[in-house]
Amino acid sequence: MYRSHHCGALREKHIGSEVTLAGWAAKVRDKGFMLWIDLRDRYGITQLVLDEERCSAALLEKARKTRREAVVQVTGVVIERVAKNPNMDTGNIELLVSELTVLNEAQTPPFTIEDKTDGGEDLRMKYRYLDIRRAPVQNSLLFRSKIGLLVRNYLAEQAFIEVETPYLIKSTPEGARDFVVPSRMNEGQFYALPQSPQTFKQLLMVGGMDKYFQIVKCFRDEDLRADRQPEFTQIDSELSFVHQQDIMACFEGLLSHLLEEIHGISPAPFPVISYEDAMKTYGNDKPDIRFGMTFTELNAQAQNKGFTVFDAQELVVSIAVPGAASWSRKQIDTWIDWVKRPQIGANGLVWVKFNKDGTFKSSVDKFFDNDALATWATACEAKAGDLILVMAGEAIKTRTQLSALRMALAESLELRKPNEFAPLWVVDFPLFEEDEDSGALHAMHHPFTAPKPAHLSQLESNPKDVVAQAYDLVLNGNEIGGGSIRIHDRGTQEKMLSLLGFSDKEAKAQFGFLMDAFTYGAPPHGGIALGFDRLVAILGGKETIRDYIAFPKNNSGRDVMIDAPARLDDDQLNELGLKNN
Amino acid sequence: MYRSHHCGALREKHIGSEVTLAGWAAKVRDKGFMLWIDLRDRYGITQLVLDEERCSAALLEKARKTRREAVVQVTGVVIERVAKNPNMDTGNIELLVSELTVLNEAQTPPFTIEDKTDGGEDLRMKYRYLDIRRAPVQNSLLFRSKIGLLVRNYLAEQAFIEVETPYLIKSTPEGARDFVVPSRMNEGQFYALPQSPQTFKQLLMVGGMDKYFQIVKCFRDEDLRADRQPEFTQIDSELSFVHQQDIMACFEGLLSHLLEEIHGISPAPFPVISYEDAMKTYGNDKPDIRFGMTFTELNAQAQNKGFTVFDAQELVVSIAVPGAASWSRKQIDTWIDWVKRPQIGANGLVWVKFNKDGTFKSSVDKFFDNDALATWATACEAKAGDLILVMAGEAIKTRTQLSALRMALAESLELRKPNEFAPLWVVDFPLFEEDEDSGALHAMHHPFTAPKPAHLSQLESNPKDVVAQAYDLVLNGNEIGGGSIRIHDRGTQEKMLSLLGFSDKEAKAQFGFLMDAFTYGAPPHGGIALGFDRLVAILGGKETIRDYIAFPKNNSGRDVMIDAPARLDDDQLNELGLKNN
Repeated sequence: MYRSHHCGALREKHIGSEVTLAGWAAKVRDKGFMLWIDLRDRYGITQLVLDEERCSAALLEKARKTRREAVVQVTGVVIERVAKNPNMDTGNIELLVSELTVLNEAQTPPFTIEDKTDGGEDLRMKYRYLDIRRAPVQNSLLFRSKIGLLVRNYLAEQAFIEVETPYLIKSTPEGARDFVVPSRMNEGQFYALPQSPQTFKQLLMVGGMDKYFQIVKCFRDEDLRADRQPEFTQIDSELSFVHQQDIMACFEGLLSHLLEEIHGISPAPFPVISYEDAMKTYGNDKPDIRFGMTFTELNAQAQNKGFTVFDAQELVVSIAVPGAASWSRKQIDTWIDWVKRPQIGANGLVWVKFNKDGTFKSSVDKFFDNDALATWATACEAKAGDLILVMAGEAIKTRTQLSALRMALAESLELRKPNEFAPLWVVDFPLFEEDEDSGALHAMHHPFTAPKPAHLSQLESNPKDVVAQAYDLVLNGNEIGGGSIRIHDRGTQEKMLSLLGFSDKEAKAQFGFLMDAFTYGAPPHGGIALGFDRLVAILGGKETIRDYIAFPKNNSGRDVMIDAPARLDDDQLNELGLKNN
Repeated sequence: MYRSHHCGALREKHIGSEVTLAGWAAKVRDKGFMLWIDLRDRYGITQLVLDEERCSAALLEKARKTRREAVVQVTGVVIERVAKNPNMDTGNIELLVSELTVLNEAQTPPFTIEDKTDGGEDLRMKYRYLDIRRAPVQNSLLFRSKIGLLVRNYLAEQAFIEVETPYLIKSTPEGARDFVVPSRMNEGQFYALPQSPQTFKQLLMVGGMDKYFQIVKCFRDEDLRADRQPEFTQIDSELSFVHQQDIMACFEGLLSHLLEEIHGISPAPFPVISYEDAMKTYGNDKPDIRFGMTFTELNAQAQNKGFTVFDAQELVVSIAVPGAASWSRKQIDTWIDWVKRPQIGANGLVWVKFNKDGTFKSSVDKFFDNDALATWATACEAKAGDLILVMAGEAIKTRTQLSALRMALAESLELRKPNEFAPLWVVDFPLFEEDEDSGALHAMHHPFTAPKPAHLSQLESNPKDVVAQAYDLVLNGNEIGGGSIRIHDRGTQEKMLSLLGFSDKEAKAQFGFLMDAFTYGAPPHGGIALGFDRLVAILGGKETIRDYIAFPKNNSGRDVMIDAPARLDDDQLNELGLKNN
């Protein structure tokens, strides 16, 4: 070992001991006759001290020449610090250096290795190994590692078995695009990387594994929306002989355990809300319930009162912004402009100030008197001092627009508190969604999701009204998990694939093995998958998953550090039986 | 939940309780008036009982029709068994069934779902989900899961951080062939799947992560020798500020911990043997030291005594087979034929029986008298009753041939006891190996391995004699891990790549990011990677990794269950900018 202790270890009890440390020279402060170096490693920082009185001139000179981020090994005696630093774990001591060896030199880094760095995103990604030296990134990776272990131990306690499913599998055109892998040994044929271990975990249930989990990488070759990665990590699981509520209870237990272990929070039983209610109340199937501003429909109160803008619309819907009656016209106009941007696409906002004195002032005073507006306020459960904002239009579109406004307002009002955690379940999703253009049915969750038993008979006659045994786990406005009870009989699975537009031949070619398996004694089963990257980020009080991934890719799917992907040479392509188009 | 208890849970204390179980009908025994079903799940088997006296005729009839491997839910009262079965955890009780529901029917499985099955390898792989229902396979997967968790908790205790490194990286022609992944977003460019996270873990060290590990899938597109998989799992790790012995101590600790936890064995400190000694003593750099039959060189005793077959050879080398002096000529001839097979390629064997009465009888009696043979026996430390087998030829080849014989003899004599564990370290590997044909140098470990400091100066002048700071962990004749101290300065790394035949341009294109990283303060570091599949198999007392992989591929790299790899349709190829050659 190059060290007797790490840089976060030394305390007052070590005073008088000779120790050896190794780490990076984070800072060198040179007062001429005296010189300090902050020596840093993963575990902390220890202050080194050298001076003319107690150190040789040669040693002092060597220390003076030590560059920032050089790798240094030092030996010395632990002494008490005169000017103690209560903000540092090692702040009561310092190391009086007697030997100093530079183990490796360092160029000046392209950005400062400090909590607040001057490096932009691109530079930090190119030199990610230097970015990782910064405490915020390092702590994020430590945090992720800790949560992974907590998850594994918790699930193992619950008799879950971690089983590794294969990465080289078969492409299925259903869903997102697969990354494919040409096979050299089977020329002209390709493996695919898994978008999830879905079929394999179902086969494990058919195999009697009973309770499976895996923390596993998954792959989707999608155009990357903000904060998506082509490879991402999932806490994947599947259970046999369970109903929906058993799976929900199990993973509610897991998330509660994490909140308890990490933040000392024991959450109340998670609210359960139907997809329909979520859409009506929040305009969103992953509502952030850390704050109010829930939707109130005002069709009864606001339509047919002479304001034709409302009358023709399917939906008139409002939120009450707490304490915002005091906003200036300019402030309100900013938000009106905000919802009119093409990204939101609303026509505008009607606003109603519910003044502290109980009076109302609105943008529709011509059409609605105080009494009329008071009925709105009552419906919204607005309090004096609140600002009521109203949108009208086609129901689905308007809810989505108002939801975006609600979230942006919450952000702006700092109601989305990173250290507050509000999990909930959203249930009763439709089994299908309809393609707006073609009218084709798509599986809202995936083609293996079981309908509610009572809806099974309508699968063909009335598919759009069939409700799935599917559930999402939502945390702070993010879907962190989704799952379902699966179909476990061949007949229903065949019907499902047929409704989704698979020919018998396609169904057989792609999922024949699964449907065969169902004929050999498949137990009732279901599962859930949690997005590990996002879960970790939210538990860490952030929403950017990139902060919690050691080597993330950029929005073009590139690793700019290693410069991948890259061209292959012709030999390598030839060997795969391929050529570029 | 479909059950109140699982099938391994019920004991005498449950007698009188009404319970509900669910599982697979493993066996149905029908005596007409009475009928038993063995209900099986992952946790065990519970005997169900129904009879004419206590059950309705309809219920009995339903039970009678239950087919093997059907999925069944039953409710009933736990009763004491008349004929107890002490070999079963649930052997003191049985369940008197009052309700029975078939949750899913089952076709007759293509092979019997029992410990000893009648299914051949191919059939079991095609229906792997049924194979997994068999206790030996299920137990292997449970065993693997348990070891994974033990490893993770042990390393976390030692302050290791699990960091996920990317799967979509860059192809490097060095080493085995990469699997590549065409990028749709970056047409004409490819990712590669990692053969190991080598460069990333080194960058994590540059990033100050200090102690990293990961249980991670790796990929090699190699022609599959027996018992190799194109995707395999590694316990990967890297440490900073350490010397070789620190890493060895750490992973000796890990393996000792596993042996202790799993088998209750506390191994003595692992022997450490140099590569050179391993080759001389065992003809093998991964010796099985559970048994003797070590090599003795007999050049001094056996050459220049008139037996010209020996005289001309570089090496005369022997082993003493314990107790084999009693073998018949026919038995000995079998082994002579065995070594002459093309797979081994030896010219033959000289044999010497060291009889119980102290006399000798050999195949070279014409050339060597009793006294001469006695000097051989003394050199070999043979005991009366042993059989000495001697080979002669070119040193490296002969050692390899004798090693093969030694292993086969041990197998045949049942000296390779699966429940005995003999770990050791092999150290001091050469840094390079020379290509026999071209004379080109290859890295014996990989191009990032550091030479011994004392040998650094000979790197260019005398590369073949340079010894690496590399070490293998060997268990029961299998290399289960290998690692090294890494180069951590740009100059040495450049020199190394140049010696391996990389042009400056190639070196920069492929490993520029790593060499750049070395200039920003890279700490001294090193690591090790353990083959997880093999480790688990050996700890489980087997050597076939396939038994411990849920969904293995066959020797052509195919998953015969899902039938992958497979052809892509032209649209999918087109979208990737590719066509088949």
